[in-house]
Amino acid sequence: MANSKYEYVKDFERSDKLSPDQWIVVRIDGRGFTKFANKYAFEKPNDRKALDLMNEAAKFIMTEIPELVIAYGVSDEYSFVFHETCKLFERRESKLVTTIVSTFSSYYIYLWPKYFPDKPLSPPLPSFDGRAVLYPKTKHLRNYMSWRQADCHINNLYNTTFWSLIQQGGMTNQEAEKALAGTLSADKNEILFSRFGINYNNEPAIYKKGSVIFRDFELVEPDTHNTFQEVDDVAEPLEQSKTQAEKEKKKRLKARVVVEHLDIIQDEFWNKRPWILSNKPGKIPKASST
Amino acid sequence: MANSKYEYVKDFERSDKLSPDQWIVVRIDGRGFTKFANKYAFEKPNDRKALDLMNEAAKFIMTEIPELVIAYGVSDEYSFVFHETCKLFERRESKLVTTIVSTFSSYYIYLWPKYFPDKPLSPPLPSFDGRAVLYPKTKHLRNYMSWRQADCHINNLYNTTFWSLIQQGGMTNQEAEKALAGTLSADKNEILFSRFGINYNNEPAIYKKGSVIFRDFELVEPDTHNTFQEVDDVAEPLEQSKTQAEKEKKKRLKARVVVEHLDIIQDEFWNKRPWILSNKPGKIPKASST
Amino acid sequence: MANSKYEYVKDFERSDKLSPDQWIVVRIDGRGFTKFANKYAFEKPNDRKALDLMNEAAKFIMTEIPELVIAYGVSDEYSFVFHETCKLFERRESKLVTTIVSTFSSYYIYLWPKYFPDKPLSPPLPSFDGRAVLYPKTKHLRNYMSWRQADCHINNLYNTTFWSLIQQGGMTNQEAEKALAGTLSADKNEILFSRFGINYNNEPAIYKKGSVIFRDFELVEPDTHNTFQEVDDVAEPLEQSKTQAEKEKKKRLKARVVVEHLDIIQDEFWNKRPWILSNKPGKIPKASST
Amino acid sequence: MANSKYEYVKDFERSDKLSPDQWIVVRIDGRGFTKFANKYAFEKPNDRKALDLMNEAAKFIMTEIPELVIAYGVSDEYSFVFHETCKLFERRESKLVTTIVSTFSSYYIYLWPKYFPDKPLSPPLPSFDGRAVLYPKTKHLRNYMSWRQADCHINNLYNTTFWSLIQQGGMTNQEAEKALAGTLSADKNEILFSRFGINYNNEPAIYKKGSVIFRDFELVEPDTHNTFQEVDDVAEPLEQSKTQAEKEKKKRLKARVVVEHLDIIQDEFWNKRPWILSNKPGKIPKASST
Repeated sequence: MANSKYEYVKDFERSDKLSPDQWIVVRIDGRGFTKFANKYAFEKPNDRKALDLMNEAAKFIMTEIPELVIAYGVSDEYSFVFHETCKLFERRESKLVTTIVSTFSSYYIYLWPKYFPDKPLSPPLPSFDGRAVLYPKTKHLRNYMSWRQADCHINNLYNTTFWSLIQQGGMTNQEAEKALAGTLSADKNEILFSRFGINYNNEPAIYKKGSVIFRDFELVEPDTHNTFQEVDDVAEPLEQSKTQAEKEKKKRLKARVVVEHLDIIQDEFWNKRPWILSNKPGKIPKASST
Repeated sequence: MANSKYEYVKDFERSDKLSPDQWIVVRIDGRGFTKFANKYAFEKPNDRKALDLMNEAAKFIMTEIPELVIAYGVSDEYSFVFHETCKLFERRESKLVTTIVSTFSSYYIYLWPKYFPDKPLSPPLPSFDGRAVLYPKTKHLRNYMSWRQADCHINNLYNTTFWSLIQQGGMTNQEAEKALAGTLSADKNEILFSRFGINYNNEPAIYKKGSVIFRDFELVEPDTHNTFQEVDDVAEPLEQSKTQAEKEKKKRLKARVVVEHLDIIQDEFWNKRPWILSNKPGKIPKASST
Repeated sequence: MANSKYEYVKDFERSDKLSPDQWIVVRIDGRGFTKFANKYAFEKPNDRKALDLMNEAAKFIMTEIPELVIAYGVSDEYSFVFHETCKLFERRESKLVTTIVSTFSSYYIYLWPKYFPDKPLSPPLPSFDGRAVLYPKTKHLRNYMSWRQADCHINNLYNTTFWSLIQQGGMTNQEAEKALAGTLSADKNEILFSRFGINYNNEPAIYKKGSVIFRDFELVEPDTHNTFQEVDDVAEPLEQSKTQAEKEKKKRLKARVVVEHLDIIQDEFWNKRPWILSNKPGKIPKASST
Repeated sequence: MANSKYEYVKDFERSDKLSPDQWIVVRIDGRGFTKFANKYAFEKPNDRKALDLMNEAAKFIMTEIPELVIAYGVSDEYSFVFHETCKLFERRESKLVTTIVSTFSSYYIYLWPKYFPDKPLSPPLPSFDGRAVLYPKTKHLRNYMSWRQADCHINNLYNTTFWSLIQQGGMTNQEAEKALAGTLSADKNEILFSRFGINYNNEPAIYKKGSVIFRDFELVEPDTHNTFQEVDDVAEPLEQSKTQAEKEKKKRLKARVVVEHLDIIQDEFWNKRPWILSNKPGKIPKASST
């Protein structure tokens, strides 16, 4: 066939399967979102509608891809976590990353009019880049999640103070920047409270903690469990029966995907929801399944 | 700072810079588009509006990313070619691939209502996966492009005959498949002509040749040029002056991006448009610049 | 300088740093050793001198590279294990693999006359290939080691029976192969015992278990320890003080490197020697340090 | 079988096949050779016997691996070039690199007593590290070779002057270093000539040009050929018949492998020996085959 003469160029494609039994985090980021946020006049320091839009797009991703166990979003970035045992697309990196980036972009554009009915999009359109990072052990994944949430806290405290100085304090951007140079967290809390009457602790959790998305099963008593250990300790690979795998998949699809604004640095979050790290679905709570 | 304790997890990020001086092809494909085409009742064997939508989305990409020199689309796939000297994003693979996949997805959703005003999208939304392939030499790139266009021809001839047997010949899918098993191109041409009065040569070029997108400069006399050779032969890397690079970028942005349905297997296409492989912008044609 | 014109070719070198906090196993294999063994008339099924030569070469490697925590050898292959926290050569894969392969080859040639004084080497010389494999968790490393030792057992039982059938039973190679086709371990044990009076359990441990090399510190009571857990459970990366690191390095260099033929599949071996997985040197045994 | 339980650890092995149709350069370097050269009292600035030893080891490699088309050595480093079409070991990187590093190390130890009969080796033994670099086009390979030879020239001129200042001029190392700081080539030539009566041009070619190893066929008239172009220009991959490939392999094995000290920066070397870049064996010269 005439085709075969050229088909050899397929040999240049390289295998990009990710090594097994490691956590895969796909993090996406808005491209040029500072400019984009200005174009559509997003509120400072946080635009609630823009965050709700990010969260709804991410919730669609979590719902459509049951191999994801948790997602965490802050500002214009979102991290999606595939369980370490995940075999989706034979763990091909490009396929995993582009599927998430593309689907997220589609939902972002699709949902935009719902959140910004008065601000129709025009080219150049918003878009996202993304990458995968592998974490070999559960402790690394936990620390990755903690890193993003600690970052959220640090940035939000800074931004809240910065924009208070400008919006209520009448400073210019440069003056505000200068005023904050070298300040510690305590200093910023103090500025917010003494100058603007703002108790940072009372700020909305979505701004202080970011957003975490997961499947909602019945909470487990934290004392009865040490998920951490269970996950990495198993001495041999568990080969599930097909029936068992099917059953679990159904349970996952049946579970409600929820968006919360909780502390994910402490153990409590994880110990109460052992299914996130173990990937064994829990019990569907009464009266809360979809 | 509290953050630093977790920040070490960044060390798990790997460098994914693509080796220099090789052509980078990013090919994207619609995910599950057979099902998607059924959901929105795309016409068989080709839905002109669906192709026009793909082409307009791709045209936006070419316009927004001047480092791309050519793109080729057929059915639900599109190949975007970065010039071998391209340094965009330091040639980081994830960044290059996800930027294209995301931007394309955004435009696809955004432009959908223009082409299908009566068929509003609903979840699950269309999405695309993508991957990068490196081609070390110009001959490989040319052969890659030829491969895709040869594929387009082979598939379109098959599909045109297949759907004629069904739509006009009253066959079932299985009967049509059986009727075509083992047939050569000549056989299919004959079936089309003798049974349905269709001269395949008269079919629209967009179906037979696919769509090629490039910047439109003044055509060059083919005899005066052998681009092929020029491109790979240069014995040392050319370091452009900054002014020169700026000048060329402006010329590129000024050029009209066009969608055509031409033969890209023969040399003629490339010899007449030496700027595609050389990345040296040509002359802006009179009365045709945007 | 004249040089700079060509120096750009360095840009084609890719980074090959291995991801942190994973076990690095470098396994080397004799190239064409079946032919090589024939050329120098190695004894079948095991040539004790050839194995002793492999072991002494490997012991030199372990002694010269303190970042290695354990090595395991069988037949013409050897696996060297870098601790998961190892930062030698910035974890550059090529550097780690070639250093081991090269040093091993050097010692193999150098030590040859000691073991085979009557069989001087002649070209083509023996050589080894090698590769690195990453294991994310301690359980994987343990299973890797078990895999190699299980392989050793299976092959040695087969080979012992095969060569008994030939050397003592007078069979041809094909006859022996046929006689063993489809047999289980029990069958081979039975053949050895009933036909040749060989009790496989009494075969030398070096043939049945292979050779394991490690630093020799004072054994630890197994019950008091569960190394497995300790290693992966630490929630944050331990940054050692420089003094502490220096102190430990000295202890490692002071320890005797020993070659043993022990069971490394069971937990006992590892629990008694927690320093192998933890990389924290133990106590130097009295009267046994070098 | 007991084995299967652990065998899953093989899944952690990654494919490391190098992309096709690119030149593969494997460069090896002596590990810690400054110290090693001192231990065995190598002559400064060049030890002829140490270079001859390197060259003979490299010649064995070239002879044993017909897929190599050329090698270039200087000081304690050697670059081995696999032809871009080479399919040895399915182009697996580890296999290609370790085979060369290991075989070279073996020959280095084996040949040592021939060149240094009075200086027996003792641990720690000399060893080499190595890495592969891919060059997509012939011009890159040519520039790589030029880079190494230009480096050889620059270093040798510096070292010759440096050691003259010490050995004949009675300077200390620091004084010599200071005397040469900021000098150009012309200055060093002048120092050599005016102070020590050395005409650098008359220095032995092996020191000034390094050593190049290739198969020796009948030289070709340079004008009749432009190898450069031929090599990259072929529009489609050439699939040789098996007979043809066998015939060429025989010719390669029949050819004498020679060590020369020629200029490989200029075109002349390559144009007279088109078989190096084309990998098409030339004519065996009369009376010179082995």
